[in-house]
Amino acid sequence: MLSPERNRTLTSVGPDTPMGNLMRSYWLPVLLSSELPDPDCQPVRVRHLGEKLVAFRDTSGTVGLLDEFCPHRRASLVLGRNEEGGLRCVYHGWKFDTSGACIDLPSEPPTSSFKQRVRTKSYPCIEAGGAIWAYLGEGEPPAPPAFEWMAVRPEQRFVSKRLLECNWAQALEGDIDSSHASILHSRLNPADYAEFEGARELLYFDGDRYPRYEVFDTDFGMTMAARRNAEPGSHYWRGAQYIMPIFVMIAPFDDPLPQMNMWVPMDDGNTMVWALHWHPDRNLTQDELERRGSNLYFHCTQFEDGTSEAGSSWIPKANSRNDYLADAEVQRTKMYSGIEPLWCQDKAVQESMGTITDRVHEHLAPSDLAISRWRQKILATVENPVQLEELPGRDPQTHRVRPPHFVAPENADWRSRMEEESRIA
Amino acid sequence: MLSPERNRTLTSVGPDTPMGNLMRSYWLPVLLSSELPDPDCQPVRVRHLGEKLVAFRDTSGTVGLLDEFCPHRRASLVLGRNEEGGLRCVYHGWKFDTSGACIDLPSEPPTSSFKQRVRTKSYPCIEAGGAIWAYLGEGEPPAPPAFEWMAVRPEQRFVSKRLLECNWAQALEGDIDSSHASILHSRLNPADYAEFEGARELLYFDGDRYPRYEVFDTDFGMTMAARRNAEPGSHYWRGAQYIMPIFVMIAPFDDPLPQMNMWVPMDDGNTMVWALHWHPDRNLTQDELERRGSNLYFHCTQFEDGTSEAGSSWIPKANSRNDYLADAEVQRTKMYSGIEPLWCQDKAVQESMGTITDRVHEHLAPSDLAISRWRQKILATVENPVQLEELPGRDPQTHRVRPPHFVAPENADWRSRMEEESRIA
Amino acid sequence: MLSPERNRTLTSVGPDTPMGNLMRSYWLPVLLSSELPDPDCQPVRVRHLGEKLVAFRDTSGTVGLLDEFCPHRRASLVLGRNEEGGLRCVYHGWKFDTSGACIDLPSEPPTSSFKQRVRTKSYPCIEAGGAIWAYLGEGEPPAPPAFEWMAVRPEQRFVSKRLLECNWAQALEGDIDSSHASILHSRLNPADYAEFEGARELLYFDGDRYPRYEVFDTDFGMTMAARRNAEPGSHYWRGAQYIMPIFVMIAPFDDPLPQMNMWVPMDDGNTMVWALHWHPDRNLTQDELERRGSNLYFHCTQFEDGTSEAGSSWIPKANSRNDYLADAEVQRTKMYSGIEPLWCQDKAVQESMGTITDRVHEHLAPSDLAISRWRQKILATVENPVQLEELPGRDPQTHRVRPPHFVAPENADWRSRMEEESRIA
Repeated sequence: MLSPERNRTLTSVGPDTPMGNLMRSYWLPVLLSSELPDPDCQPVRVRHLGEKLVAFRDTSGTVGLLDEFCPHRRASLVLGRNEEGGLRCVYHGWKFDTSGACIDLPSEPPTSSFKQRVRTKSYPCIEAGGAIWAYLGEGEPPAPPAFEWMAVRPEQRFVSKRLLECNWAQALEGDIDSSHASILHSRLNPADYAEFEGARELLYFDGDRYPRYEVFDTDFGMTMAARRNAEPGSHYWRGAQYIMPIFVMIAPFDDPLPQMNMWVPMDDGNTMVWALHWHPDRNLTQDELERRGSNLYFHCTQFEDGTSEAGSSWIPKANSRNDYLADAEVQRTKMYSGIEPLWCQDKAVQESMGTITDRVHEHLAPSDLAISRWRQKILATVENPVQLEELPGRDPQTHRVRPPHFVAPENADWRSRMEEESRIA
Repeated sequence: MLSPERNRTLTSVGPDTPMGNLMRSYWLPVLLSSELPDPDCQPVRVRHLGEKLVAFRDTSGTVGLLDEFCPHRRASLVLGRNEEGGLRCVYHGWKFDTSGACIDLPSEPPTSSFKQRVRTKSYPCIEAGGAIWAYLGEGEPPAPPAFEWMAVRPEQRFVSKRLLECNWAQALEGDIDSSHASILHSRLNPADYAEFEGARELLYFDGDRYPRYEVFDTDFGMTMAARRNAEPGSHYWRGAQYIMPIFVMIAPFDDPLPQMNMWVPMDDGNTMVWALHWHPDRNLTQDELERRGSNLYFHCTQFEDGTSEAGSSWIPKANSRNDYLADAEVQRTKMYSGIEPLWCQDKAVQESMGTITDRVHEHLAPSDLAISRWRQKILATVENPVQLEELPGRDPQTHRVRPPHFVAPENADWRSRMEEESRIA
Repeated sequence: MLSPERNRTLTSVGPDTPMGNLMRSYWLPVLLSSELPDPDCQPVRVRHLGEKLVAFRDTSGTVGLLDEFCPHRRASLVLGRNEEGGLRCVYHGWKFDTSGACIDLPSEPPTSSFKQRVRTKSYPCIEAGGAIWAYLGEGEPPAPPAFEWMAVRPEQRFVSKRLLECNWAQALEGDIDSSHASILHSRLNPADYAEFEGARELLYFDGDRYPRYEVFDTDFGMTMAARRNAEPGSHYWRGAQYIMPIFVMIAPFDDPLPQMNMWVPMDDGNTMVWALHWHPDRNLTQDELERRGSNLYFHCTQFEDGTSEAGSSWIPKANSRNDYLADAEVQRTKMYSGIEPLWCQDKAVQESMGTITDRVHEHLAPSDLAISRWRQKILATVENPVQLEELPGRDPQTHRVRPPHFVAPENADWRSRMEEESRIA
């Protein structure tokens, strides 16, 4: 449990909050590149870390991320016209480039020097891995993120996004919690797993529901290792990497693709969840693509507004207003939740806690060690500020990891193996 | 009029409020038994006295009422799986019985004693009269309620429920106010009453619009007697019993069936209204059933979501969003309100006052004596706490009353007759 | 920019606020006369200056404007029955005439004097120019408003109303700001103006986008004169009159009809916008009527609820929930905003600023002189109270003005001409 004050510290991400300051020390993803498909395309409203922003792609293809509101009279630049080299407010025509400089101010005479005195707030952006990343912090941004999925060709990865209507922290806590996999994502009858080809992991989850955790600090954040009994005399080790401040790597499940999730706070009550799968060496197979495009496993691909890609509201078709399309009969006979898509099982429990969960009245158990250690770690980081360069996970060299999982004899040196299998050449 | 402070005292029902404490000293109805139709059926979300709860019926048929949120990580147990002997949280599988004890905790080893340290909030429930009643207070609950309708067979009663989107007190005040019957529920042309077979009462309401009240304290709460002129030389006396804290008995109207209403506070801004009719000695007739199932008199039987029974949102089809389906032409030519269902006439005026009516700026008249006496009574009760056993209406022996009404000569001993006709053998 | 405190002073219109008091010193329009079409028609809910009111037309045709809530038990009189000489509350039948006197109180005996002690809040109303005007202030109201459009026959004017979901002040500021016409209301290709017969003004707007302002105080408020270059050696002068507290006269545009807008605050976050065109001497032509009825220029004639007249919600079909039906392709190729109706271009930018715009973080330019002078003027008026009679624009004699515009040689005495053309004989 946390005190009300520390729960607030953990969950508040706006400007001038301790956690908000930590978030602002990293490059974070704000949009898919495909949401700004072409030079001079329509600008897009962005809600990020409690700030109201507008993103646009200029004529040269460069992305800008500005204060949503024109510094002149505060009309929204989401209504703006994206034209030759900048975004123009449609109210009086003031035009800004991606750096926030005012490059046209037609409501004053050409001879006026007023234009030079006008700037708008702008944040540096980069594009990498099919995503647009922004740095909202003070000082020099770090080098760009360098996760493995960002380096592979688009054909080697699968990316999806969805809106989660609750605070980021209770969502991320679900991701570093291996023990819920044995219930929330489980079938009542283990024989049902036969349909999941090669889903050895599911049987381990089912056979041993109380994983023992080993958690250790790393230069990117923390590694959580969950140990379960496997075949007699051996253990199933499952690693997850928490990379500060919002990234979690999850070991493969059901096929050889590792997963990374990004829990991007839009504000204190809404989170944009990015799910990523990739193969380091080859294109994804048709089967791998179909499974991920099916809306049933880790990726939401059906949205409330009927669209499925850039331009969507990113609100899943199954959401709290329709009780996540849960089926009582399926819950009675087949699975714990009655909610079919795996990602939606997580969404349902995470949102059901309320916008910000009441950590004062919870009861953490020994199997919640990863969660309690994670809170200690991130709260210690925001409560005891260090030099930016010393922040775990800020140096992209630390991103070169991959989530390991393996079966090993009981007395094996699991930790060496985990570290070795985590490292990317 | 009340001061703002006393209006707050009257209307606030959450935990640790004076009125909330009074409410918690009684068994109150929370669900129809039919809302939990079978052992191990789906759990149901309950909003009651400002608390968020979940109700379920276990394998043995016993009803449990728990904190909505699992004490582990605060996922909602409304998503839970109701299985062999308890309700299981679908997040990590913690399972609770109706007493709030944790009876399975699969995320820890079987050898762990952690389970014994976990309990969740649970409230005692009983079932009687086709309803589930809960006791949310401190100490030993009283004996179960014993209203007459609870003792008869289901064929002898008619029960309905509906959501009212305002505070409970302004709703109950409508129920103990006989004078509005002469206007709100009246026709413009008394000849129209001919269609109501035997509706002698309607003619009395119409013929004498300013009832004189006699109000006296009883062991259950208060009796309100409204006197109107009847045939020359005689009075029509109409009794209503207020049984603490939320029950009102209403004299028959239009046929021989007495009525009881229960104004159950869900929170300070929403009230679940239960309407009950019954016959002490025989089944209801087809005609009596049809009249009550018609949606036009006292019972709401048409809901916004198209369902009409357990599982409904209980939001009436006619509500504030559609101006109660009022018909201006009917209002012009036939009745004061233009709203057809009688219960909905009450709903419309009660909700129109706002979520919590402004008792600071009202003007009570002599004909509002019952209301002002009721407020005095209930506010005195919460402001001067007594022993639980001394609370009016807490002992179910006091529930054995029936609402009387009769025509008597002007100089008759009306009060003796009222007391006599109130008493159930 | 303003301080947060002065921004609050400028934008708060409720009872007992400085700006609310100024507003209450004038007759302001609350309804179209056609919204209360007949004697004894249905009453209408009115939201005005942060107060909840109900308007009705009594049997004699007189309009009453009362507190929405019955002084008895606070039921809404919007549910009331409008009958012989007054509005009757449907709860207990208390009936009020247009003066707020209680003229029937059937829940008390006829001999009771209680009725004499009951009054409800009522505000004086007048009808003129097809509108119902109310005076919510202290003391004697001034003589009725006497704008030119009020004196002409209905066939000589065109009136429309629409709801604007933001504060009144940022809306009115758009009206006294000539410079935005060169962008927000402009086409990308000046050749497109050919379709606007006689739209000489549009070419001036396009040819000179940085108007120079001359602003001077008058007995009604202020006159703003915007000067643009016209043909060589001449200026195009465009006058707008701000008549305290919410009226703006706009020079003709595209045909000879002057315009007046009324920015009526419903509360701090909603404004009823009235747009008026008229011809002083003749009926409007079919062409003039069609243009105004087309929904494309200054008048909103398509509403969300499908109705188009009295009884409408007055919510435009194009609104923030549907992104003002903006067309990205039109924005790319034809006009700055992509929003077709001219009035909706204003609505979009005004609402996009948020409910109350953040005047602390704006940057006014020299071309915003009219706006900064307007704020100085109105804030000085509320911050330095004067006698009611001294308030600009309160005496209807001052209303006899008309917005002038003309092309004049560079060295002409523009100000004398503007004053002369403003005056109505």
